Amino acid sequence: MEPARYLRTPLTERLGLRHPILSAPMAGVAGGALAAAVSRAGGLGIIGGGYGDRTWLERELGAAGEVPIGIGFITWALARRPELLDLALDHGPVAIFLSFGDCRPFARKVRHSSSLLILQVQTLEQARAAIDEGADIVVAQGTEAGGHGGRRATLPLVPAVVDLAGAVPVVAAGGIADGRGLAAALVLGAAGVLCGTAFFASREALSHPAAKQAAVRATGDATLRSRVFDIARGLDWPAEWDLRTLRNRFAERWAAAPDSLAAAGEEVLRAYAEAVAAGDVGTATVIVGEAVDLVRRQEPAAAIVERLVSEAAARLGDAPSLLAPTSRRDLSVGV
Amino acid sequence: MEPARYLRTPLTERLGLRHPILSAPMAGVAGGALAAAVSRAGGLGIIGGGYGDRTWLERELGAAGEVPIGIGFITWALARRPELLDLALDHGPVAIFLSFGDCRPFARKVRHSSSLLILQVQTLEQARAAIDEGADIVVAQGTEAGGHGGRRATLPLVPAVVDLAGAVPVVAAGGIADGRGLAAALVLGAAGVLCGTAFFASREALSHPAAKQAAVRATGDATLRSRVFDIARGLDWPAEWDLRTLRNRFAERWAAAPDSLAAAGEEVLRAYAEAVAAGDVGTATVIVGEAVDLVRRQEPAAAIVERLVSEAAARLGDAPSLLAPTSRRDLSVGV
Repeated sequence: MEPARYLRTPLTERLGLRHPILSAPMAGVAGGALAAAVSRAGGLGIIGGGYGDRTWLERELGAAGEVPIGIGFITWALARRPELLDLALDHGPVAIFLSFGDCRPFARKVRHSSSLLILQVQTLEQARAAIDEGADIVVAQGTEAGGHGGRRATLPLVPAVVDLAGAVPVVAAGGIADGRGLAAALVLGAAGVLCGTAFFASREALSHPAAKQAAVRATGDATLRSRVFDIARGLDWPAEWDLRTLRNRFAERWAAAPDSLAAAGEEVLRAYAEAVAAGDVGTATVIVGEAVDLVRRQEPAAAIVERLVSEAAARLGDAPSLLAPTSRRDLSVGV
Repeated sequence: MEPARYLRTPLTERLGLRHPILSAPMAGVAGGALAAAVSRAGGLGIIGGGYGDRTWLERELGAAGEVPIGIGFITWALARRPELLDLALDHGPVAIFLSFGDCRPFARKVRHSSSLLILQVQTLEQARAAIDEGADIVVAQGTEAGGHGGRRATLPLVPAVVDLAGAVPVVAAGGIADGRGLAAALVLGAAGVLCGTAFFASREALSHPAAKQAAVRATGDATLRSRVFDIARGLDWPAEWDLRTLRNRFAERWAAAPDSLAAAGEEVLRAYAEAVAAGDVGTATVIVGEAVDLVRRQEPAAAIVERLVSEAAARLGDAPSLLAPTSRRDLSVGV
């Protein structure tokens, strides 16, 4: 394969990357192998600290070895186990990534470490707070993203965040799984992208093999945002954020009345847990976003990075060809 | 003002436009003056046929005069007054634009006219049907759009539609109100954009002056999708599509329980109608999308078109500067 060209942005300069691509800290999916593979390929891989399982985190940090990576946390979950931030910082990650909650109890500690502070936001108001809090990088995440997220969409959110971020690099997240999306994000003013769905079916992801197959087969029409799977997993997420997943039998059954699921009792939740263990994706959730349309094969993470960059470089290189000479004959229908 | 450069795409070639910009057929807002102004500026303005008010449509077609324009219909509403399609075709529009419903009763008649058939879709499945139906142009509309729409977001929907559309030009709609969005859409593979919110506060739009002011002041965080204002206006929209508007007092009051509004009776609806007439935007709806962040002044439609094109041309012209030389020293954190 022809080596991909480099893309140079304030993000690559700041993080010392070859490519402006971050992999999302997907809970239970983005372990050390995926993060290391993305970093080796020239991006920055981020391990998902998830809901605070110290044993899991220690193992995955070990799996990343000496490869520089980032570590991400669900902020409200970190607040219940704040000592995990010390564990993370002791590893010396390139960056700590925080999303979904009040970062203030942690921001100062990160700013006084050797790690950069990446804050993910879902609204313009949160973006303003993140910049006030001293974020080194702001990730603007649209509702089309897989996993937890908010209501605003990536395409209009990113330029609005860029306009208030000043010199702080803004990374676009949500809906980007190929080089066209990467190129579009850069043209829009983002300094890079954060991709989850694109890596969900990668060889290194810890997703269940059946879930990877389901992602490759799925259409982006078939996702929904709901509380269903958080209830089924016993996770008490704040109402501000819900979870985008594939729409499966279980979601169809409960999405219209999630409170009934909460009331359904232990038996339903136990059956759900068994389906997860068995990889029964008719019941167990497959946490991907709308960009799953663009995920068409299982492949190594490095191949995904290379393809994103090659496609984006081609699009960006060709962009001026859309500009017609100003001397062009006026074809307007209007005058 | 420096004349804007031309952008050349399959859409401009097909429609004979200087710029790949369509203005959305916003019901009650996009009349003949707005459509004509957009067409004169080099795009294609589309009059909103709305819910089938023949007198309104005749007047606005008259206002457009001899300037080539398009005419848009809400498909399920057109099904109740199919004779309006004949009125529209008699005007000889550049295109008939259909969205929200089964186009099959109308597609054949348009295909046998001198007007092109533009079909707007909100899902990949609808896009497939539109292409099967012989659409000359497909508009892929994301949920961030103002007004009626679906669930999918523009950034991931557009490339997925492009991949199945073959030679049929795909236009991106939803979330685009400046030249960055236009440039991003083109890089993503769209042949052009359709903008509503960008023109909502334009001088020629028929929006209430108070609504234009509210749009200029609003943040994109402050929109929501709901059925509230359709119920308040007595419009029986199919459940598949709801309405994105600014979040105002009336929306806050009823959004959580729209059925209570339906049951609230005549008095509430009469009060709503009075608020609309009075331009009380605390109650009356302001129908704009998330891109309202980028709408910062009231200005003529031609100035909006010029700015979109100038900004996009600058972004596209500069895009190759993001490509670093391949001989660049390897700064990767990863190896």
